[in-house]
Amino acid sequence: MNYKVILNLLGRVLIVMALLMCLPIAVAIYYGEQTLLAFIIPIAGMLCIGVPLSLLKAKDKSLYAKEGFVIVALVWILISVFGSIPFMISRTIPNFFDAFFETVSGFTTTGATILSLSNTEISMPKSVMFWRIFTHWIGGMGVLVFLIALLPSKGDIMHVYRAESPGPSSSKLVSKIKNTAMILYCIYLVLTVAMMLMLYLGGMNFYESMLTAFSTAGTGGFSAYGDSIMHYNSVYVETVVATFMMLFGVNFNMYYLILIGKLSKGIKSEEFLTYLAIIFLAVLTISINVLNVTGNFFTSLRQAYFQVTSIMSTTGFVSVNFDGWPALSKGIILFLTVIGASGGSTGGGMKVSRLIILTKSSAKDIRSNLRSRSVNCLMFEKEPLDRTVERNVRTYFILWVAIVVASSLILSLDSFGDFYTHLPALSLV
Amino acid sequence: MNYKVILNLLGRVLIVMALLMCLPIAVAIYYGEQTLLAFIIPIAGMLCIGVPLSLLKAKDKSLYAKEGFVIVALVWILISVFGSIPFMISRTIPNFFDAFFETVSGFTTTGATILSLSNTEISMPKSVMFWRIFTHWIGGMGVLVFLIALLPSKGDIMHVYRAESPGPSSSKLVSKIKNTAMILYCIYLVLTVAMMLMLYLGGMNFYESMLTAFSTAGTGGFSAYGDSIMHYNSVYVETVVATFMMLFGVNFNMYYLILIGKLSKGIKSEEFLTYLAIIFLAVLTISINVLNVTGNFFTSLRQAYFQVTSIMSTTGFVSVNFDGWPALSKGIILFLTVIGASGGSTGGGMKVSRLIILTKSSAKDIRSNLRSRSVNCLMFEKEPLDRTVERNVRTYFILWVAIVVASSLILSLDSFGDFYTHLPALSLV
Repeated sequence: MNYKVILNLLGRVLIVMALLMCLPIAVAIYYGEQTLLAFIIPIAGMLCIGVPLSLLKAKDKSLYAKEGFVIVALVWILISVFGSIPFMISRTIPNFFDAFFETVSGFTTTGATILSLSNTEISMPKSVMFWRIFTHWIGGMGVLVFLIALLPSKGDIMHVYRAESPGPSSSKLVSKIKNTAMILYCIYLVLTVAMMLMLYLGGMNFYESMLTAFSTAGTGGFSAYGDSIMHYNSVYVETVVATFMMLFGVNFNMYYLILIGKLSKGIKSEEFLTYLAIIFLAVLTISINVLNVTGNFFTSLRQAYFQVTSIMSTTGFVSVNFDGWPALSKGIILFLTVIGASGGSTGGGMKVSRLIILTKSSAKDIRSNLRSRSVNCLMFEKEPLDRTVERNVRTYFILWVAIVVASSLILSLDSFGDFYTHLPALSLV
Repeated sequence: MNYKVILNLLGRVLIVMALLMCLPIAVAIYYGEQTLLAFIIPIAGMLCIGVPLSLLKAKDKSLYAKEGFVIVALVWILISVFGSIPFMISRTIPNFFDAFFETVSGFTTTGATILSLSNTEISMPKSVMFWRIFTHWIGGMGVLVFLIALLPSKGDIMHVYRAESPGPSSSKLVSKIKNTAMILYCIYLVLTVAMMLMLYLGGMNFYESMLTAFSTAGTGGFSAYGDSIMHYNSVYVETVVATFMMLFGVNFNMYYLILIGKLSKGIKSEEFLTYLAIIFLAVLTISINVLNVTGNFFTSLRQAYFQVTSIMSTTGFVSVNFDGWPALSKGIILFLTVIGASGGSTGGGMKVSRLIILTKSSAKDIRSNLRSRSVNCLMFEKEPLDRTVERNVRTYFILWVAIVVASSLILSLDSFGDFYTHLPALSLV
């Protein structure tokens, strides 16, 4: 294990995080809030540890898979600990475990909250709320794609990238991984700004446009309001948010292909078309299925479009209480959570590409069992699929089921209630 | 597709089924019941179709995987149709769809019933009840292991065996598959008789001992009483039934090894030890977990031992209403249903051997991803595991999850209820 390289990288991460935490300070100053210390103290802490570490010189700059996993694990823990300090100092979430939970939920874009959502507006200084939702945006692209883009780094950082890539295969768009990360990050920024402008031009105030765009871009789901997007009760806001949730669930490679003029190649992507087909079918089925509840097709469509994109992108915004929906619609929603967004997007879940590979791989096995002879290799995105990728996708799926089972059992230790109420554990994975 | 061979085999199957249906006639005569026609009519029907078909001579006796699958599928449908006729003629289950459901549930040893279980004793002539539960015993070993043992057959019937073998790999105990099936079948018969005697000597009447042994041996779960084994309210009966449920969930290869004097090899089997370990851990955890409900450890242990063996062997007998159990115990019960019994046993579920292979195969992948180099092949039961078997186990698991998902969604079409109530769909698979 190359400790020096690991420590050096962690040091740089802390410095970048310290710089990012300056943004809520600007918000605090703008709104004249007394929350400056809540941010200055952790910033000072991060710099005190980060600067010396970043000065460590490692002779051997080699990074292997093992180091990649260790760095990713440590980065998540470190930024979550420092990220929770503003909540504690500002007394908005005084308890460490609560604040840590909220921050982890933020960075991982899980979107579960310990805050009481019974009030319409969550009482919290605007700068702290900014930080709470900004964690989604930071975590959205995966902390490491983000960092690789920012950090001047030598050595083989492909291992770090692979340890956290949001899809079955971590391909590079351009030959240098650092440039790939930079391009992805720019696309992320442009889409976020576009969404913010559309919300702002539609009448939402600047601050809330920004927060909503951060939360959507990271496919997180935190909201300044207890009743989430329902608060605005506006077809325009719902449509913009739903459409951007869908867009942030697309593989970012497609945007890159569009950027370099290869529009048709991007649009013909198997994963993209499957992703759209699933959304279309789910919206259509739910729209028809909930007609009895809503009474008219337009309301059904509006609710179905928003909830499907929200769940499939794993954002988790709500525009309607779907507890009253029929069993089929609730079932579809549950399985969309499991499928999740496209690989290489900010969304979570199993990813559409993995679903495609799993399906093809199983179909191949059925065929070869029936015909008693082996079938040629799998095609994915019009190219032969590497056997290792196929194997890893299957392992991923098996481990995913195992984690859902284990976490459901652990959660069920908590209460004497119904076991099924703990199945939502799967939305955390 | 070799139609003549398929038809010839189906013909023989019908003749054997006709012979088996003579047993309930003996029961009807013994008890002086007016149900003779209910059995004579389907027997006549099966012979009329079966005898001509069995006389078909196929020049080409070759059987491939495709034919194997077709035969297995057709046999299940055919025997279920003919098997449901006694229920209809005797007017015990007059509706065809109900009778067909009951028969399929019987042959597949699912054990779900359309009968009302509110009454303590299910009102049904003893001969018809005998047939209802005898279907479990016939289906227990897989209809085809049973038939291969009885039928004089040439050609490669390994494909038929493989198409329905209850485990990840279909190994032959002895060089001739027909002899293998015969040995397995003898073990099945001896265990069934042993159980019957133990129940009979414990004070149960002969008829009920026989039915209980049939239902347990096939790991089916049908009972002559609406309240199943709870009816007897006897520690002796519960202990005997629980122990035999556990024994019928063991890989029958182990009994063969014991028979030929290789006791130590049989007992050291990975699958056998894992199976026992899971039962032991589940019984222990549930015993402690339900202490609050039952009040004393002996009752807890008694309930836990019975329910764990019943669920893990997928028999489905009940000795207690476990709706009142804590969430953890209910969760364990749910996952034991999924795991199921050992490969090569009469029990259902995923099978312990598949669980072991899945776990080892995933662990191998994690190791090889961490170390960036490939690891040697998997060992199972002290032998290197064939890569194809490993791959097929993974495909089986993936398809299993897909079927659970699809059938849950289809079931949820039925009602406006809670989606989770349909998850028991997984116990049908």
